[in-house]
Amino acid sequence: MPPLSSGLLGALDPTSDRAVFRQIADQLREAIDTGRFAEGDKLPSETELVGHYGASRMTVRSAISILQGEGLVVAEHGKGVFVRPRPPVRRLASDRFARRHREQGKAAFTAEAEAAGSRPEVDGLVVREEKPSPDIATRLGGVRKVLTRRRRYLLDGRPVEFAISYLPLDLARNTPIAEPNPGPGGIYARLEELGHRLDHFDEEIRARMPTPDEAKTLRLAAGVPVIHLIRTAYDTEGRPVEVCDTLMASDAYVLAYQLPAT
Amino acid sequence: MPPLSSGLLGALDPTSDRAVFRQIADQLREAIDTGRFAEGDKLPSETELVGHYGASRMTVRSAISILQGEGLVVAEHGKGVFVRPRPPVRRLASDRFARRHREQGKAAFTAEAEAAGSRPEVDGLVVREEKPSPDIATRLGGVRKVLTRRRRYLLDGRPVEFAISYLPLDLARNTPIAEPNPGPGGIYARLEELGHRLDHFDEEIRARMPTPDEAKTLRLAAGVPVIHLIRTAYDTEGRPVEVCDTLMASDAYVLAYQLPAT
Repeated sequence: MPPLSSGLLGALDPTSDRAVFRQIADQLREAIDTGRFAEGDKLPSETELVGHYGASRMTVRSAISILQGEGLVVAEHGKGVFVRPRPPVRRLASDRFARRHREQGKAAFTAEAEAAGSRPEVDGLVVREEKPSPDIATRLGGVRKVLTRRRRYLLDGRPVEFAISYLPLDLARNTPIAEPNPGPGGIYARLEELGHRLDHFDEEIRARMPTPDEAKTLRLAAGVPVIHLIRTAYDTEGRPVEVCDTLMASDAYVLAYQLPAT
Repeated sequence: MPPLSSGLLGALDPTSDRAVFRQIADQLREAIDTGRFAEGDKLPSETELVGHYGASRMTVRSAISILQGEGLVVAEHGKGVFVRPRPPVRRLASDRFARRHREQGKAAFTAEAEAAGSRPEVDGLVVREEKPSPDIATRLGGVRKVLTRRRRYLLDGRPVEFAISYLPLDLARNTPIAEPNPGPGGIYARLEELGHRLDHFDEEIRARMPTPDEAKTLRLAAGVPVIHLIRTAYDTEGRPVEVCDTLMASDAYVLAYQLPAT
C-alpha cells in the first residue's frame, strides 16, 4: 500500500454538515471506486487514519464499519482491513438448460464453469426422502413425499451456490435420480429418459441478506447479499417435475434472461 | 409488545461456545422468523434484554446490530427497535413487456401496479441529452450521444425503483420519446410507431448492497440489498434501441422468468 502522504485521501470538510465518520467513509469509498485502492489492497491502518484525519478511533471504526456493511472491504483479524477481492463472476445464460447442453452429457454447472475456464466442484451431497414444506408441496402440484438432493457448488475452491432439488418421490424413487451420481447430463437428462420430456422452467428471483448459517455455507463476506432463486421444471404434460431452491453468492453471479416483446 | 415474562425469549446456553451476543441474536431472529414478534412489533428494550439475559448493554447492542445488518429489524431513533415491516411485493412477470400490454395504452409499471391493487406513482423525471458511459455506448452498438430518461417509481408512496433509460439520440430526438410524458403505452409503444418493432429484451440481474445515495433514493432500511437490472431492447432488425438501467429495492420485488427447455 502506498503511504498516505501520497495524497490518496483528501481532507475533511469542516464546513460540511455531513458527520465526520460519513465523510471518512465517503473518501475511502471513492478511493476504492476509482481504483486508487485496488482489490486486495490493505487500507491505511486505524492509527494512520486517526493521524490523517485527526479523528477519534471510534469515528474511524464507524467509517470502516459502513464500508464493511456495503461489502466494499473485509477485516482480517490481526491483519487489517482490505478491499474485498471480487471472485470471477459466473454468468447464467437463459439457454443454460437447453437440451443440447444435456445431450453433451454435462450438467449445466459443469458445462458452464469449464467454458468460463473455472474449476467446478460439487460437495456436501445428501440425497434423501422427505416430507416437503407446504410451499414446495404446492409448487410440485400437491405431492406428499419428495426426494431431495442437497449440494453445494464451488468454483476454483470457493463456494458460490447451495441448492436443494425436490422431486416427486413416485417419480424419482428407485431411479438413477436417487443415486449420488445420476449420470451424464444430470437429473434433467434422467427425467427425460423416464418419459418426462421437459417443456420449460419457471424461475423466481429474490435478493436479501443471508442468515448466519447461509453466510457460513457460502463463506460470504459482510455486506454480500444472496440471490434466492426458485426454479420449477415442467414436462410437456404441464406437470411440475422438479423444484430447485438455490441460494447464490450475489458477488459471484450475473443472471441473464431473454424476454419476448410479443 | 407482550412482556418478556411471557416466555417469548429463552435463556442463554452457558455451555455453548457460541458468543453471547450471537446467542441473543439467534433467539431474537428465531422469535421473528416464527412470528412471535410480528412485522412492526417493537422488540424488548435494551434495558429489558440486559435484565432478561444478564448481559452487558454492549453485548445486547451487538446482537441488535447483527439483526439490523440482516435487514430483520430497524432502529427508530428514540423509539426503539422494530421488526421491519415488509412492503407489498411487486412480481415482475416474464410477459411484462408483451405488446398486448402496450396496446392497452399503459406502461408496464402502471398496468402491473394497478392489477396488484397498489397506487403507482412516478417522480423525479429528468429527460436530457448526454454522452453515454463506455458501457452504455457499447450496449447500444457504439452510439456517441443518447437521450436519457431518469425517474423514480413509487408504490403506495414508497420508492421501489430508480431507472435510467438510454436511447440513441438520432432515434429519440424530436420525437414524443423526448417529451416528459411520452404518451399511452410509454416509450416502447412510441419506438414501435417510429418503425422500430420490438423483437425481444435481454435482462441482466445482479444483487449488491446499495451505496449511501442509492439507499437514500430508495429509502432502504439497513440490511436491504438492491437488485440491479440492466435491460436492452432490440428491434426486429437486431438493433439495440434502448438500455434501461434499473435499481430496485430487493424487499419489494420478485422477478419471474420463463426459460426454454429446448
